[in-house]
Amino acid sequence: MKLLVVGSVAFDAVRTPHGAVDRMVGGSATYFSVAASYFTQVRVVGVVGDDFEDEHHQVFVERGVCTEGLERIPGKTFFWSGEYSADLNNRTTLVTDLNVFADFEPKLPPHYRQTPYLFLGNIDPELQSLVHRQMENPHIVAGDTMNLWIESKREHLAETLRGIGMLIINDSEARLLSGEHNLIKAARAIRAMGPQTVVIKRGDNGATLFQDGEIFTAPALPLEEVFDPTGAGDSFAGGFMGYLAAHLVPGTPPAPDVLRRAIIFGSVMGSFAVEHFGLEGLRKLSRPEIDERYDEFRRLTRFE
Amino acid sequence: MKLLVVGSVAFDAVRTPHGAVDRMVGGSATYFSVAASYFTQVRVVGVVGDDFEDEHHQVFVERGVCTEGLERIPGKTFFWSGEYSADLNNRTTLVTDLNVFADFEPKLPPHYRQTPYLFLGNIDPELQSLVHRQMENPHIVAGDTMNLWIESKREHLAETLRGIGMLIINDSEARLLSGEHNLIKAARAIRAMGPQTVVIKRGDNGATLFQDGEIFTAPALPLEEVFDPTGAGDSFAGGFMGYLAAHLVPGTPPAPDVLRRAIIFGSVMGSFAVEHFGLEGLRKLSRPEIDERYDEFRRLTRFE
Repeated sequence: MKLLVVGSVAFDAVRTPHGAVDRMVGGSATYFSVAASYFTQVRVVGVVGDDFEDEHHQVFVERGVCTEGLERIPGKTFFWSGEYSADLNNRTTLVTDLNVFADFEPKLPPHYRQTPYLFLGNIDPELQSLVHRQMENPHIVAGDTMNLWIESKREHLAETLRGIGMLIINDSEARLLSGEHNLIKAARAIRAMGPQTVVIKRGDNGATLFQDGEIFTAPALPLEEVFDPTGAGDSFAGGFMGYLAAHLVPGTPPAPDVLRRAIIFGSVMGSFAVEHFGLEGLRKLSRPEIDERYDEFRRLTRFE
Repeated sequence: MKLLVVGSVAFDAVRTPHGAVDRMVGGSATYFSVAASYFTQVRVVGVVGDDFEDEHHQVFVERGVCTEGLERIPGKTFFWSGEYSADLNNRTTLVTDLNVFADFEPKLPPHYRQTPYLFLGNIDPELQSLVHRQMENPHIVAGDTMNLWIESKREHLAETLRGIGMLIINDSEARLLSGEHNLIKAARAIRAMGPQTVVIKRGDNGATLFQDGEIFTAPALPLEEVFDPTGAGDSFAGGFMGYLAAHLVPGTPPAPDVLRRAIIFGSVMGSFAVEHFGLEGLRKLSRPEIDERYDEFRRLTRFE
């Protein structure tokens, strides 16, 4: 079933120990869409400037992502620039130019309103709620957030959280949001805020799913070369939500075995994302390659 | 089959956010022995002072660990004192009084020399080699080491490593020993030094096994309360080696499925160790409790 994502579409400049790129298409909604597109049909809602040309649109077009909800207005596209430490564990943001994103007011094309799966990417929680209110009875609503909103818009974020079924955030965000260092306690506190399914991303230590009385944990795939961690978390979320949109049964609670497989497919897409700069690792995959990597996760974790 | 461990037997003083103990039996060989004793018969080689009374011996006696190789000489037992940070991720050593351990020269009782499984605990690599040389054709020799020896005794450590089949160390030690940050590269470099099986312990992120062309990774059990991380790594090694000593087939290479199960049993014993202060979490277990926790690891990681 169809999956709608709202979030940032951007130009990124990235420097890692392996090289640097001055300007490439990025943004959380972009990584999410491309990763999810291997599992289901994706619709993207966002805004770009008039410097976002046909060649840049190509990343969506070639993956069959519907961009009717991607507004193009006069001005410059959101620009982000960052640099990674030698061990890739720390990232410094050098530039954040919101540009056309500063006044973003997401408006859904009318036929988008009945999309059954919704992912509220990491944007201002007021905008997340605005999008959610435009939807007509979606089957699953999931979201992401970040330290900035946890610190500056806690009340609006609380409203977003009350309305969503799933939250997919990283460990430091989970700790900040909940005030708990221990991740079991953090997940319990977040579930009390609304989302009954909490996925905590732990970078190269994997991801953990918390549901009612159940914990599932997946490692990250050990890789010899990580070229660019940018977008890994968004690609994880895209793989996770894309798989759910294709396999959950509407009208019933999310099945635990489907959620577990979705965590692994999310991890698979995250692993492809970091193997190359920017979106390159995600653009030219085939479903057999994805399934082969899924099997690698099985070999990596299986014991009798 | 029988398992011999050489290492430290100590008194520990530990302070964690949950409380403090001024003096309790500890030491790497102690945690290792108690954890391994649930799987096989263990012999311990070490030294204690005359302040190590019958009541302290009890921790070995009650678990059927043979202490004929535990020398008792005039003087005070090795004393270690440490303090953990609020999140338990950092440990500060406050006191290290080697006492009788300063002149430790391990001497194996003659009938110990044919023990088929040997674990060279984290002691001076010259002493590790001294013990190894006293053994008669052991089936498996595994070892541990630490930053101190990697930095101060690299040549002697290289000799130890050339002679052993398995190395069980934590991630920071693997990085220091190999000069590689990436753990796949670190494991490859360490395998080139001798041990063909490398187990890298990653604290609350689990443990990873590297063998010829194969990687297996296990998470740590998510726990709501970690009372005292002291001895977790040694308990992991004890569970791992104890299970191997009970299940490997002598004269054949270590079977991958047995190694994987051993990693999980190691993780099980590590998880019991951290739930209480000192050795308390390990002393009173039953095999059904251990097997139940093994099943918890299965539920935690299994996907189809």
